[in-house]
Amino acid sequence: MATIRDIGLAAAINILSAFLFFIVFAILRLQPFNDRVYFPKWYLRGLRSEPSRSGAFVKKFVNLDFRSYLRFLEWMPAALRMPEPELIDHAGLDSAVFLRIYLIGLKIFVPITLLAFSVLVPINWTNDYLEKSHVVYSNVDKLSISNIPNGSKRFWTHILMAYVISFWTCYVLLKEYEIVAKMRLHFLASEQRRPDQFTVLVRNIPPDPDESISELVEHFFLVNHPDHYLMHQVVYNANKLSKLVKKKKNMQNWLDYNQLKFDRNPSSRPTRKTGFLGLCGEKVDSIDYYTSEIAKLSKEEAEERERIKITTKSIMPAAFVSFRTRWAAAVCAQTQQTRDPTVWLTDWAPEPRDVYWKNLSIPFVSLTFRRLVTSVAFFFLTFFFMIPILMVQSLANLEGIEKVVPFLKPLIEQPLIKSFIQGFLPGIALKLFLIFLPTILMLMSKFEGFIALSILERRSATRYYIFQLVNVFLGSIITGAAFEQLHTFIHQSANQIPKTVGVAIPMKATFFITYIMVDGWAGIAGEILRLKPLIIYHLKNFFLVKTEKDREQAMDPGSIGFDTSEPQIQLYFLLGLVYAVVTPFLLPFIVVFFGLAYLVYRHQIINVYNQEYESAAAFWPDVHGRIIYALVISQVLLFGLLGTKKAAQSTPLLIALPILTIAFHRYCKHRYEPAFVRYPLQEAMMKDTLERAKDPNFDLKGYLLNAYIHPVFKTEDDDDSAAGDQEMETILVPTKRQSRRNTPVPSKYNGSSSPSLSEVVRELP
Amino acid sequence: MATIRDIGLAAAINILSAFLFFIVFAILRLQPFNDRVYFPKWYLRGLRSEPSRSGAFVKKFVNLDFRSYLRFLEWMPAALRMPEPELIDHAGLDSAVFLRIYLIGLKIFVPITLLAFSVLVPINWTNDYLEKSHVVYSNVDKLSISNIPNGSKRFWTHILMAYVISFWTCYVLLKEYEIVAKMRLHFLASEQRRPDQFTVLVRNIPPDPDESISELVEHFFLVNHPDHYLMHQVVYNANKLSKLVKKKKNMQNWLDYNQLKFDRNPSSRPTRKTGFLGLCGEKVDSIDYYTSEIAKLSKEEAEERERIKITTKSIMPAAFVSFRTRWAAAVCAQTQQTRDPTVWLTDWAPEPRDVYWKNLSIPFVSLTFRRLVTSVAFFFLTFFFMIPILMVQSLANLEGIEKVVPFLKPLIEQPLIKSFIQGFLPGIALKLFLIFLPTILMLMSKFEGFIALSILERRSATRYYIFQLVNVFLGSIITGAAFEQLHTFIHQSANQIPKTVGVAIPMKATFFITYIMVDGWAGIAGEILRLKPLIIYHLKNFFLVKTEKDREQAMDPGSIGFDTSEPQIQLYFLLGLVYAVVTPFLLPFIVVFFGLAYLVYRHQIINVYNQEYESAAAFWPDVHGRIIYALVISQVLLFGLLGTKKAAQSTPLLIALPILTIAFHRYCKHRYEPAFVRYPLQEAMMKDTLERAKDPNFDLKGYLLNAYIHPVFKTEDDDDSAAGDQEMETILVPTKRQSRRNTPVPSKYNGSSSPSLSEVVRELP
Repeated sequence: MATIRDIGLAAAINILSAFLFFIVFAILRLQPFNDRVYFPKWYLRGLRSEPSRSGAFVKKFVNLDFRSYLRFLEWMPAALRMPEPELIDHAGLDSAVFLRIYLIGLKIFVPITLLAFSVLVPINWTNDYLEKSHVVYSNVDKLSISNIPNGSKRFWTHILMAYVISFWTCYVLLKEYEIVAKMRLHFLASEQRRPDQFTVLVRNIPPDPDESISELVEHFFLVNHPDHYLMHQVVYNANKLSKLVKKKKNMQNWLDYNQLKFDRNPSSRPTRKTGFLGLCGEKVDSIDYYTSEIAKLSKEEAEERERIKITTKSIMPAAFVSFRTRWAAAVCAQTQQTRDPTVWLTDWAPEPRDVYWKNLSIPFVSLTFRRLVTSVAFFFLTFFFMIPILMVQSLANLEGIEKVVPFLKPLIEQPLIKSFIQGFLPGIALKLFLIFLPTILMLMSKFEGFIALSILERRSATRYYIFQLVNVFLGSIITGAAFEQLHTFIHQSANQIPKTVGVAIPMKATFFITYIMVDGWAGIAGEILRLKPLIIYHLKNFFLVKTEKDREQAMDPGSIGFDTSEPQIQLYFLLGLVYAVVTPFLLPFIVVFFGLAYLVYRHQIINVYNQEYESAAAFWPDVHGRIIYALVISQVLLFGLLGTKKAAQSTPLLIALPILTIAFHRYCKHRYEPAFVRYPLQEAMMKDTLERAKDPNFDLKGYLLNAYIHPVFKTEDDDDSAAGDQEMETILVPTKRQSRRNTPVPSKYNGSSSPSLSEVVRELP
Repeated sequence: MATIRDIGLAAAINILSAFLFFIVFAILRLQPFNDRVYFPKWYLRGLRSEPSRSGAFVKKFVNLDFRSYLRFLEWMPAALRMPEPELIDHAGLDSAVFLRIYLIGLKIFVPITLLAFSVLVPINWTNDYLEKSHVVYSNVDKLSISNIPNGSKRFWTHILMAYVISFWTCYVLLKEYEIVAKMRLHFLASEQRRPDQFTVLVRNIPPDPDESISELVEHFFLVNHPDHYLMHQVVYNANKLSKLVKKKKNMQNWLDYNQLKFDRNPSSRPTRKTGFLGLCGEKVDSIDYYTSEIAKLSKEEAEERERIKITTKSIMPAAFVSFRTRWAAAVCAQTQQTRDPTVWLTDWAPEPRDVYWKNLSIPFVSLTFRRLVTSVAFFFLTFFFMIPILMVQSLANLEGIEKVVPFLKPLIEQPLIKSFIQGFLPGIALKLFLIFLPTILMLMSKFEGFIALSILERRSATRYYIFQLVNVFLGSIITGAAFEQLHTFIHQSANQIPKTVGVAIPMKATFFITYIMVDGWAGIAGEILRLKPLIIYHLKNFFLVKTEKDREQAMDPGSIGFDTSEPQIQLYFLLGLVYAVVTPFLLPFIVVFFGLAYLVYRHQIINVYNQEYESAAAFWPDVHGRIIYALVISQVLLFGLLGTKKAAQSTPLLIALPILTIAFHRYCKHRYEPAFVRYPLQEAMMKDTLERAKDPNFDLKGYLLNAYIHPVFKTEDDDDSAAGDQEMETILVPTKRQSRRNTPVPSKYNGSSSPSLSEVVRELP
């Protein structure tokens, strides 16, 4: 039983460790040789270049200006200083709106915390139920609802508070939905011309024995949208080609690495073995080997390119169809084209950067099947993931290791090492699984066949949230694996479930407080250090980088990672809302989390992250919906808890709460969601008219010609069009941030993580 | 415990009574003076006129041709003879597709019955579980699943059968959905020009201080649909005017009645009292009184007409907007117009006959509120309707009556009358409620604010079905009022519910067999007699009819009444599917019901009913969905039943069944439902192109000018445009039915039941 003092101590330790992280970060970020790790966003935007090229050699790597170390927390106010409109210009609407999630957290929980501490805490504290009941309790419990005797009139306060909290949360959510919808519409309205505004993705084009796909598309749209059709771009199945290109790139990296090695040490030519992973087989000269491999791959690639262009088989029954006006594209995207609702399916084309090309070649008919398979797989993943892990754990014990690697036996038989392994091994399978979980979920979404990165991320986020809800939240409250819970729940009365969970909630408060500190506070502080990109950048820099261009590719700015970070925030919303009435003592920890996270992510978004796409905050309905669900869960659990506390006369009042909340959700959905799904004709018409007036002779066809070509078809003219990048970007707003030290240098859009997508952009005039 | 012999006896009685109905019907329909009751459809289509005007006086009223009585069942083959395409021409697609619901019943249940009797019945019969168990049982139970001992291997047959039945039902449903979708699309494609093809209903037009609604609409669509906008028609709030018109019509009826009375008996002028319901107050001359009342109302009406035209208040923020092409209307109906998704809402305009004008004047903002109120009201109606009825019953007892009307005391104290009242009174409140239930549900739908009759009927049908499911089906299985069940269910484990219901199912088989015979067979046979319209027609004919036109108005052809008859059919689907595996003995009764109902309704649709609107089978997704739900319910209940029979190893197999069924439903929804909701652009474009080629100089504006004017504004020129009717109708297909006796006579579209709607049609050129 943790007392307030214990928790205070833990908090102090966690705060100190966070502080330590910040100090390390402050030191690292000031070193010029880390500049590209901590400020990649500015490089990518071309607003920063290599610091101080002239000057002493040492200065190039280490910052010797000691005054700068004194101001080691200066990034905090700096992160807050950039106003929101500038942030949108700088990092895109997605990032700016993502930060608003943390802000909502603060907006919801700061007033709730103040209210709860001024009302609920005194009411809970001034009871002596726990003292009388002779159970073991800590003073944290004395602050919680557990301290109220059964059937007490004081529960009315808690019910009232539940109402106040629900109304306040809904009010904040409503306002926020309104603001974000407005921001999105404003963003879309003020955007420059973009290819996806004119383009619709047509899928499942029915085969025709007499016409090729391309002719078919042209005829269909010339007939059915006669005044509006402009052009189209068929979709090739270039997955094999992409693989070849990727392989070649990999070989090129190895060649570069060996070349560099040879340059540094000209006495010995590097060698490698030709077998599996270079571990066995014949020894050959590495440079020669890779050069010949690359030549072979280049030939294969050229053949594949030829094959795709000649055979009709590689043309998928899908096409990007562009129209003369935004109005016509909006019309085509929102209407049904033919009698049969499963063919000629039209939908907005994703932004070219956002297209997930690989999935465009999935036959449409298999999508339903894929969706079913993924749902079933996800269900089993969520509820039964513990089974294989338990199996692995039972295998990966000391005896197992001794059997497989008998020569280690004397080593691991030593008491210290033995106890370490025994304590460590059972956990490692679980930890590994949890680390790879987002990747697994992303693979699931990819298998499901979505065609845009933004949709993939949103889908993974939903699944991750459900997983956390079941396994972290419920799993911690009712200890036991999820599949055991499932069994219990099925055999329980429907209205028994909230009671079972509700009763356990107050007991787990201290656990979740610790969880928030370790996972939340420390995790956020660790995020700013960027340890993994730091190491990888320096490794790459040392082994691969030859030219300035290579160095740019070695930068990995990363992105917000909506699919993992958003579900994490949602977990804190859930904890906050559930414990607000039950154990208000948990609330300050949530508030600190949101405040810290807001600071850190704002800094990272300004200086580090580089979004791969811009969905104009299309994720907001998901965020809003999940907070609502958290609210409903909290209400149902409170209902269950009070049910066992014999505060029976309050039941009807508490039933009304989730009903009202869901009604509110439906209202919001109806009122604001269309802004995130559809494109109103009036807006389209306005932009069209404006553009016609401003630029009547614009060559739209030329502009759209190469917009939706598979990225691998563009790599050929990689170099000569690199300068084209800048034109695509919005006009740079002069910024006064101190990070902008030098004049703009042409730079590539994207890090090495997904080069294929970024290259699309370059083609645009 | 009813044995097979008891049931056979009951069946014989019911068959005989149905036969009696048919004989009475055969006699009545052959009497010339009933001709307009039993063949109104032919009068309305103008294909039949008063029989044999010349000839003996008696012949005008009574059929003396005795040979025709011998062939008293001849209507049955006659009803089947009209082929479906002709039926569609004759009665519309709605009616033709409605008949297909009965056909589906036959298609599903005839093979299932054969299979069940050849497989399940022997398997059930050849056990002796019931004999050994020493419980009271009948031989019906020996044929049912109850006769299989717990944990028997024979249950595998039942599980297999459940699969076969589910697959067969789904297969029939799939085929049927395909056929109906095709029929609908063909019907829409081959239809003549209709105003609703070009028209969109715009609702919730935001107010503008500078422009009137009419100007606002014109400007908005000129800007946002510049090449396509043709014209618009604002919506007036003419509810008060409609009321006045209706009142005047009523007064006119009374005047006619008194005039006729006076004509027949010129010696005494009829009088009436001016007070409440003509029961008290001053005595006046009736003819003078009604003449003056009508004059007063006419003046009021003229004033109201003027007021509507002058004041802007009576213009609602809604409009019917017409476009130059069907393509443009399809585009406008399917897209979002402005940023704010709650204003400028566009949707297909219902057919002019189908518009429910009264609800067009409901402010859009109140619709959400109305929906909420109706849902809550319906919930309470379904689960708590017994409470007020129990209260009424407790009041309406013998003592209560004696208190209110003490002078009746000596009479009702007599033993015979007393026992009659005591047996009869408690039931009467319930019976009255059930008779008025469809009206109550329709009022609810009207309150909810739907703007088309077809939607109102569909909505009421859904509610009626749910009510029957809860109160007839579940209520009969688990005896006890619905609110008591609700209480039990809430406090039960979620997976306990199917068990509770499932176990009770076999026991209730005989009850439902009786129900099918009494409610189904006799009800259907009664339907063909049309007792109520017969009486009303003759009353009207005697008291009110002066001219031929009056006689036409006195006809009440009625309509299918989708809102009541469809839920009734669905109940039989549910019973059939639930009992197919459990007690196959029930199936033949279902099959007879469907066969009989198909015959009777086909006859009625050909000869009697006159649909008020044509929705082109828009109700099909509802029908399909409800059969699927019935199937899922049957699967879940079987699952519950087998759960108690200790056939535990079969559980996973049975869980898969509802999941597969729901997946099938989603597939169907995705595949076919759009055909019932949206209008594909290709179709629209085809029709537009064809029409442009055929009739390039057609004056569309003139055609649409008065299409969507409130019917009360049209009654003024009632008489001079009556001939216009015929043009609107599709070209009459020469029919060879024997019912067509004379040359066509111009006739009105509609009976007296809803004259206001029919008049819309007349305006069209």
